[in-house]
Order: sequence, then structure tokens, then C-alpha cells
Amino acid sequence: MEAASPIRVSVDAMGGDHAPSVVVTGAVQAVQKAELDLEVLLFGPKATLEAELGGHPEAASLPIRVLDAPEVIGMGESPTAAVKNKRLSSIHLGLGAHKQGHADAFVSAGNTGAVMAASLFILGRLPGVARPSVIGFYPTTQGHCIVLDVGTNVDCKPEHLHQFAQMGGIYVERIMQRANPSVALMNIGEEPSKGNDQVKAAYELLKDDTSLNFLGNIEGRDLLHHAADVVVCDGFVGNVILKLGESLATAFPKMIGQEMQRQALGADEQALIGRVLHGVKQRFNYEEYGGAPLLGVGGNVLIGHGSSSAYAIERLILAAADMARADVSGSIAAALGS
Amino acid sequence: MEAASPIRVSVDAMGGDHAPSVVVTGAVQAVQKAELDLEVLLFGPKATLEAELGGHPEAASLPIRVLDAPEVIGMGESPTAAVKNKRLSSIHLGLGAHKQGHADAFVSAGNTGAVMAASLFILGRLPGVARPSVIGFYPTTQGHCIVLDVGTNVDCKPEHLHQFAQMGGIYVERIMQRANPSVALMNIGEEPSKGNDQVKAAYELLKDDTSLNFLGNIEGRDLLHHAADVVVCDGFVGNVILKLGESLATAFPKMIGQEMQRQALGADEQALIGRVLHGVKQRFNYEEYGGAPLLGVGGNVLIGHGSSSAYAIERLILAAADMARADVSGSIAAALGS
Repeated sequence: MEAASPIRVSVDAMGGDHAPSVVVTGAVQAVQKAELDLEVLLFGPKATLEAELGGHPEAASLPIRVLDAPEVIGMGESPTAAVKNKRLSSIHLGLGAHKQGHADAFVSAGNTGAVMAASLFILGRLPGVARPSVIGFYPTTQGHCIVLDVGTNVDCKPEHLHQFAQMGGIYVERIMQRANPSVALMNIGEEPSKGNDQVKAAYELLKDDTSLNFLGNIEGRDLLHHAADVVVCDGFVGNVILKLGESLATAFPKMIGQEMQRQALGADEQALIGRVLHGVKQRFNYEEYGGAPLLGVGGNVLIGHGSSSAYAIERLILAAADMARADVSGSIAAALGS
Repeated sequence: MEAASPIRVSVDAMGGDHAPSVVVTGAVQAVQKAELDLEVLLFGPKATLEAELGGHPEAASLPIRVLDAPEVIGMGESPTAAVKNKRLSSIHLGLGAHKQGHADAFVSAGNTGAVMAASLFILGRLPGVARPSVIGFYPTTQGHCIVLDVGTNVDCKPEHLHQFAQMGGIYVERIMQRANPSVALMNIGEEPSKGNDQVKAAYELLKDDTSLNFLGNIEGRDLLHHAADVVVCDGFVGNVILKLGESLATAFPKMIGQEMQRQALGADEQALIGRVLHGVKQRFNYEEYGGAPLLGVGGNVLIGHGSSSAYAIERLILAAADMARADVSGSIAAALGS
């Protein structure tokens, strides 16, 4: 059997609060981790990136190439203006390489709005997709579920929520490898009559779609107990609950710490509890997933946290390679575009 | 100095999954706890309640009276139909006694929709209040904050969100006794330009109201870290995050338990962690607050969980007495009605 050809991931090396240093380090780590199965294209000002790579002598023999993108889009820049004016940015040229088939995926931990706007502008929407959507991963008592949308679409029509369910189901099936993934609608009560007009109408669409394993409405209290593999909501609700979930990684240890102090525990006891907490905290550590997939555009795009560490970038690049390998966007096009 | 006259709380003795037994027990406990500062009127079918009270011989000498309300509104009944047709229910007659000044407050752990509809119908809105709102209590790393709305108003105009901020601020000042309470708007980013049209317009209203200590937008990740005393959002978002918060009391111990098992901890170690967890769990235990105040109606109304225990009912009744003593509804009328 011949080896499959390696996946090539296009990387915005200037994206994120600690770019380019952590991005270059993360890319080197990803390529090492993937052995010969991954190539990385680093986009950014050539001299800057080559100097960074110089700090990683081991990279000289690895499949990492620097491609010159002289313009940089800042974290605080207006996405619309940046996408219109900075055509030589690492985001534009990195996405352009993916569009032209020189890369199989694109990742960035940069300006989220600009990455999304540029993805739409350069890759376009997949046939049949009304609104591309960003996925969030949610830790539960039984592994992770996904929530979508988590911020792209603050106002949604019922048809958008229906498409989120379809796209999310495909993602879970192809990437998380769960057959017949369950889908639920986030609401304020279980009965179909609950909620605002938007979710009531979405409930009917989801119920009538026999291709979905739709469980019905769930409530906020069900999320952490893994009520479904795919939880659908508008981007406002999704963004609030995703960030609330992320904050558990810091808030809960803090509350435990306050309680340990109140109970005046000794150092050994505190260390024991620290070890247990560490394991639980890991579930809420977004670095493990690398970033948020953007579904519904004509390519495989993942968006990382602005504060990504080198480890988060490594995971981001490997997750993008998985998405390309599983052809998530091709599956969405096949399902929604027909 | 003369003693202030006791507060009289009108109680829906038939409200909740375990009514009337736990309601009667909770009422007896509340009156005992408050010493001579509290009287309770129990509304429900007379014979039923007298039989229940018979199980509490100590109640004979306490200021608890049974008032006959032969009709009962079930937990699953349509609120609109129940409010229209069951005029002799414990909810109607209990609220009627409050309206007529025979009681200073009303509490129910019954059908939430029916309690709200009947409160509006019988007590009416306070002058100047567009939308009465239910408060939720949120545990944080620095005490509790309040969130409103948490389910009454699934679609809100910017003016409604503004009034929630005003009413919530009064509640925190009068009941939680924090001067100049801080107010924040739940959003998907900190900048004023973030969010949907509703929250962008609400931001401007809150910013321009110099009577408020408005801190600006907060995100989901800030909630558990006590970003503000009063967190304002529409009832859909508020309901989802409130229930998500409540679920932490069960989800976290479960995750910790899974981690203890994975690390194969011994019985002593597990017991130690159990004691620490218990302290943290208490913060998420809704029973401590008794129930959710309904602000903006012409009276002092608290709504308990359907699953309330006797202890939760006790807290509910004592919280209602506090609201009446602090004259929360009078303060809201003075602030919004002028």
C-alpha cells in the first residue's frame, strides 16, 4: 500500500497575541508530531519568520516553508477594512493558497472577525449553506459535545439553526467518529411550545428532518451532563455559554481554593486536591482542541484563541489536518448542496 | 422603642412537586426561625392543610393560619386557562390577600407561569414598569451576583433591559445591602460595538443613565468571577445561564468523582475531597436563596423551584419577609414611576 500524500496546512504566522514566536514554535512541534504526514506553509513577513525559524535549527530538515506576506492585520483592526485593504496580509495570502489548492487547510489565531470575513470573501460559502458557523467544544461528564453557533451569527433564522444542526452532525460523525450523532436545541424548557419564535420554528424544522437524530429541546442544566452530541443555538447564546464553560477552568479551582483555606487544610491535603483538580481542569482547557472550526465555507478553516500558546497552535494545526483528511467541507457540500 | 409589627406572608400551600407536605413543614420552620416577627397564611383546601398541620403539634401555638382555597392549579396546567378559570385556587386567593393588604408578600413553588400571570392579573405592574422580571442568583468567586431576566421575557427591547438594570440595582441595594451596586450587560465582547442590535442599543441607554454604576459589557467568562453585582440580559440568555450555573452543583462533583476513580484514590482521600466539594456545592445550591423574586409587580412575590424541599420553602418565606420589610416594590415604584 502506498502512503497517502501528506496534508499541507497554511498557517497565519502573524495571528495571535504572541505571534509570530509561539506560532512558529507550534508549527515546528506539529510537524514533528505528525512525522512525515504534514507540511506547513508559514505566511508572514519573510525576514521576521526566517529569523524566528532560525531559533529552531531542527526545522531546517522539516517540511516547513516560509511564504512572504508583508502586511499584518492587527488583533484590534476593523475586519471589514482589513479584508478590503490588506490583500498582502498573512490571512489573505494564507487563505489564497488554500483556495488555489496549494494547501488543504488554513489556521489562524489572529483577528477572528478578519479571518471569518476573509474566509467568506476568498473561499466563499459552500453550495446550499446560508450561514457559515463556528463550532465550540463543550466539556461534559461524558466527553465533549459541540455547540454551534458560538459567535458568528448573533441573529439567526430558524433555517440557519437547522443548517447548524446538519453541519454539526457531519463534523461529529467525521471528526469525532460518533455514528448517528444526537442533536438538541438549546431552549428555556423541554416542551416544543417553549422559547421565542425563532426556536419554536427551529424545533419544527429539526423535528421534521428525518436525517437528524433530533432529541428535542434541552435546557442550560443539561449541557454539562452531555444531553446531546450537537447542541444548536444562535451565536449570542452560544458565545455566552462557551465562554462561561471556559471560565470554569479558573473559577472552579478558585472556589475550591477558598474552601480549602476556610477548612484550613494542610499542604499534603491541598496537593492531593490539586492533583484531582488538575485532571478536571484539563477538560475545560481549550488548548486541547486547538481552536474552533469554521463550517460552511469552501475549505477547512480553524480559528485559534488570540492567547494561544505554542501547544495550542500545535493542536490547531493537527486539528486542521484532521479536518482536511476527513474532507469535512466536502461532506457538508454533498449534504447541503444537493 | 416599640417592636415593629410582624410581617405577614401569604403562602401557596399547594405549590410544588411535594406540596402540601413540604410547604407546611417549611412554613412551620420559617415561623419558628423568625420567632415572633413573622405570620404565615397558608392557602389551600382547608381539610387537607389542617390534616398536614396536625402532624406538627408545635404549630398550634404559632402564628400560622389556614385559609380555604378549594381549587388547585397543577404544575402542568396552562397558565392562561388556570388564571382565567380557577379563581378559588391557592394562587389566586393568596395573591388576593396580598393585594388587599391582608399580607405583605406572597410565595409559591407552584406552576411558575400561573404565578406570574396571576401576579400580573391581580397585583398589576408598578407604575412605569414595562416588563416585570424574575431575578436569578448566581454564585461567583466573590459572593453572589444577580442575573435578570431569567425567563419571563424571552424577547426584550433595549428599554426593557434598561429597566431590568434599574430594578436589579434597587434589589441589590435594599436586600443584599451593597451600596451603589455595579451593573453590567451580558454580551459577546467588551466593545460597545459588539452584539446584536438589542444589546447595542441597551448599552447606550445604560451608559447614559447616570443613576446607574454601569461598568459596560461583560462576557460569559466574567460571570463566575463576579464582574458586576447586577448582570442584565434577556430572559432567554438568562434562563440558559442560570440553569447552567445550577447544574454545576451536580456536574462538578461528578467530574471530580470520575477523576478520583481514574487516580484510584483511597476512601480517606475521597472523604477529604468530598468535604471540600460540599462547601463549594453549597454555593450553587438554589435552596439557600429560597426562590426567585419577581420584580416590577405591585407587591412582593417570590417564586420557588417546583422541587423545593421544606428547607427551601423556609428560606423562600423568610426571603419574602425580607423583601416586604425592605419595601422593594415601593422603592421600584418610586424610582421608575416618577
